Amino acid sequence: MREVFEVRDQDGAGRVGELTVPRADATVRTPALLPVVNPNLPTVDPSRLPEFGAQALITNSYIIHGNEGLRERALDEGLHEMLGFDGPIMTDSGSFQLAEYGEIDVDTPEILRFQRDVGADVGTPVDIPTPPDADRETAARELRETTDRLAVAEETDTGEMLVTAPVQGSTHPDLRTEAARDAYATDLDVFPVGAVVPLLNDYRYDDVVEAVAAAKRGLGADAPVHLFGAGHPMTFALAAAAGCDLFDSAAYALYARDGRYLTVRGTKHLDDLTEFPCACPVCTSHAPDDLRAADEDERTRLLAEHNLNASFAEIRRVREAIVEGRLFDLVEARARGHPRLLDGYRALLDHADWLEASDPASKDTFFYLSAESARRPEVARHRDRLARLVVPDELCLDATGTRDDAWPVVPPFGPVPPALRETYPVNAETPRRVDGDAQVAAARGVAALAAAHPDAALTLVHDGWPARALAALPDAVTVEEQDS
Amino acid sequence: MREVFEVRDQDGAGRVGELTVPRADATVRTPALLPVVNPNLPTVDPSRLPEFGAQALITNSYIIHGNEGLRERALDEGLHEMLGFDGPIMTDSGSFQLAEYGEIDVDTPEILRFQRDVGADVGTPVDIPTPPDADRETAARELRETTDRLAVAEETDTGEMLVTAPVQGSTHPDLRTEAARDAYATDLDVFPVGAVVPLLNDYRYDDVVEAVAAAKRGLGADAPVHLFGAGHPMTFALAAAAGCDLFDSAAYALYARDGRYLTVRGTKHLDDLTEFPCACPVCTSHAPDDLRAADEDERTRLLAEHNLNASFAEIRRVREAIVEGRLFDLVEARARGHPRLLDGYRALLDHADWLEASDPASKDTFFYLSAESARRPEVARHRDRLARLVVPDELCLDATGTRDDAWPVVPPFGPVPPALRETYPVNAETPRRVDGDAQVAAARGVAALAAAHPDAALTLVHDGWPARALAALPDAVTVEEQDS
Repeated sequence: MREVFEVRDQDGAGRVGELTVPRADATVRTPALLPVVNPNLPTVDPSRLPEFGAQALITNSYIIHGNEGLRERALDEGLHEMLGFDGPIMTDSGSFQLAEYGEIDVDTPEILRFQRDVGADVGTPVDIPTPPDADRETAARELRETTDRLAVAEETDTGEMLVTAPVQGSTHPDLRTEAARDAYATDLDVFPVGAVVPLLNDYRYDDVVEAVAAAKRGLGADAPVHLFGAGHPMTFALAAAAGCDLFDSAAYALYARDGRYLTVRGTKHLDDLTEFPCACPVCTSHAPDDLRAADEDERTRLLAEHNLNASFAEIRRVREAIVEGRLFDLVEARARGHPRLLDGYRALLDHADWLEASDPASKDTFFYLSAESARRPEVARHRDRLARLVVPDELCLDATGTRDDAWPVVPPFGPVPPALRETYPVNAETPRRVDGDAQVAAARGVAALAAAHPDAALTLVHDGWPARALAALPDAVTVEEQDS
Repeated sequence: MREVFEVRDQDGAGRVGELTVPRADATVRTPALLPVVNPNLPTVDPSRLPEFGAQALITNSYIIHGNEGLRERALDEGLHEMLGFDGPIMTDSGSFQLAEYGEIDVDTPEILRFQRDVGADVGTPVDIPTPPDADRETAARELRETTDRLAVAEETDTGEMLVTAPVQGSTHPDLRTEAARDAYATDLDVFPVGAVVPLLNDYRYDDVVEAVAAAKRGLGADAPVHLFGAGHPMTFALAAAAGCDLFDSAAYALYARDGRYLTVRGTKHLDDLTEFPCACPVCTSHAPDDLRAADEDERTRLLAEHNLNASFAEIRRVREAIVEGRLFDLVEARARGHPRLLDGYRALLDHADWLEASDPASKDTFFYLSAESARRPEVARHRDRLARLVVPDELCLDATGTRDDAWPVVPPFGPVPPALRETYPVNAETPRRVDGDAQVAAARGVAALAAAHPDAALTLVHDGWPARALAALPDAVTVEEQDS
């Protein structure tokens, strides 16, 4: 067991946990968002970040190391005093600059020792962030280099500082899984899924989910996972549902400088807003015209404050949804922020088997909220369960809701023994207007029951199921249609 | 034209408008939420309501009329001074009490004159709020009584006060439409869709949409429509998309007294919250534990303030979405708050023909966000447009995205002439992971093109469309499958 991370609540692959940061003598409740503080240009004073809900922050040790004034101050005062922030400080290493500019002038032992010396609470080695779509050979070669550097990091004296073990592998899921296994085998502490920023910038949320899911398959449940560079609140619920615990955001500040306004349903530009579609203190005490009339520093600061408010409210919403067992419901809503987020959710549901393995057996009421709900892990689990049930020799399965002597067929789950009707998840709230995907899923449940009980005589009574649902039924099931 | 209401922006049946209230010398930007102020027990001081975004409020003239102390004060000081609120004040008449308790002791002329005398800016006659599921005969008989009372209201001297003309009809759509036509034929000003509270309480959002759509079909575009008793922010986007302009809410206060916390995704109870999933000033400066520890008045007031913040932020979000032409996207997200809201959205899409009639021809990018998006009015409109296009004698329709010499087939729209490819709505953002409903809708587009051009030789090339999409194609279309 990794002692620095404890999972408290679980929902699908999402979890609320507690990351212990020994050097800061603090714990961080996850999923957590770490605002990125640019040591040259803090948009919001770091001492104020806790007001918004920040428990920890992240800054770039490479920038500090490369600037004589900052370096001397950091070594002299320590990062906490320099930034005016008491909580845990994570430092990045320059890997991002390596990816952007092709080279940097520090190596892993040097930057880790520097991070330790300036008082960082979580440090980062210099890994190689292989970009998406790299050919397999390049990705594998660079991954070997990253793995070597993690070994160097393990050997470096970092004191009480936690050290991250970035997981690379570009868009090759098997390499990500292998990288994750190797990283997890070290004694390093926190596991960033690296080099996803280009995917996030291109709205390739399905590929982000694939990268995270592949990494998660190589990590133990006690591994805290950081999605490096994910700072837009529209992505938090989906990324948390894929099993990410930590996010970092420069977006709140970078977007503010460009007049951009973050919401959980996407980005808006101040120039286009008539009213502020938000309840935060900035938006309830200002109108867009006020900000447009303000001087640039004031406008940037207020937009950054809104962006932080919107981001931390979403982080709290994600944590609360996990505690309540309603994370999928939140993802359903967020997937409607952009068609590519829907792609991300659809990609996540491709991993229903894996999600099911960590999903609690009982949660708050299952809500059927879209055709995608038919693919939730709870539906697959019910289907598996059907195979283990004892059934009578002759059994009527009733999809019409009118027969007392039958097992009800509940879309999207399928047949339900009457004794289980009021248990999770089949006591679901479902729409009165049922869709074909729910009926197809229910038909698959019937098929699963039939396959596990070849000797039972099963009759399905339905009231107008579509052809594709009927096509999912095996020949062994007798089908009767009843007028609705 | 009704001069008191002007539509400024339109999106589907939703609109941003301006309601002029002559007696208050004020205008109200719609959709607007009018907090209900209980004259006996104001939870939040009415003078503070503008802080939250309230432009107008509603109070119950029947309660004031029935209480000697309040009645004398109201007649003496006027409602505005008595409540400490400068903006427009709408008054209800006791119809709700009539529905709840079976009788009241005022009639329409008396209560309208009283409302006028206490300075109400918008008054309400005593209509008969027939509950849902009433038999047709009862609903029709009570409707005749309501219609008679509207005639009485027209004859009553109400001065500059606007007067509402409630639209009843229970759950009989044809009666609602008839009631709306009759109401619209009067010279009354504002049109509440009445007696929907029992539907809202039972989460029968599809029936609410049916009632509103039926009423709207009988009203002109210049009729401001009030959804009486709709005060939960989870319903605003859907109701606005159905064409409602005004909402009123006692929920903010009633729920607060019961420890309930409103969100756009449903109601939570303070006892169950670990953190506040909200960015409002109450939620960013308090934790749930703080409120649980507060005394009851303080707790109720703070919860009511949160409820107002959450409600008015959603109202601004709805208005902003209409201005941007993105109201359907917001409804897509909100429909994922509860399966019954999805029913409401599905019911609304049953009226795509009617929505299409008022939907602007060009808006911001169409987002495909769920199988429901395939039923949006823009999809139906594109299909109609296909029938009017000139096509070559031989035409290849390409659903694979690989052929330059063909018309692309864009799910959910169908075939698109290359010259229109970059125009609204077919320049849509769609998921990379296409679903069957989008393909079926596209196949219907192909069928529409074929039906309108029986002499053209059409070939469809697809890469793995499901059987149900292929089944939607007419025999006249040659189908080729290409490996993807």
